[in-house]
Amino acid sequence: MPKKERKRLQVVISDEQDALLTRTAYELSSPERLISKSEVVRLAIEKIARELGEGQQTGRLEDYRAILDTADTEDEH
Amino acid sequence: MPKKERKRLQVVISDEQDALLTRTAYELSSPERLISKSEVVRLAIEKIARELGEGQQTGRLEDYRAILDTADTEDEH
Repeated sequence: MPKKERKRLQVVISDEQDALLTRTAYELSSPERLISKSEVVRLAIEKIARELGEGQQTGRLEDYRAILDTADTEDEH
Repeated sequence: MPKKERKRLQVVISDEQDALLTRTAYELSSPERLISKSEVVRLAIEKIARELGEGQQTGRLEDYRAILDTADTEDEH
């Protein structure tokens, strides 16, 4: 990627989320282009922000909040 | 979150992606529940994996590849 301001993000994820990342990276990869787990994370960030930007009126916010309530996304205490 | 296997994920993101994360965390937050940037990342991982699981036939793979080609998601070399 072009050189510009970069931040190092540290996130603790569950084993299942790590497995999801690996699977997604594999599914997005092709013989011409290998996709890394880091790329999947950056893609996922772009995607969720775009969808939220477009879709607040269509109840996406509720979708996301529902996932937040059920999936293992909460910070450790 | 319940105690189970955890992995520490390190990802380098751009300043814009960091800003997207912050904005998304704010949009998902409510007076009852503050959402952290780490939570947004975990949510985004769950979301992209679910969507890819559901939507391979509907051209989502192409959507994602298009974002990979245009957005700043590539690994540094």
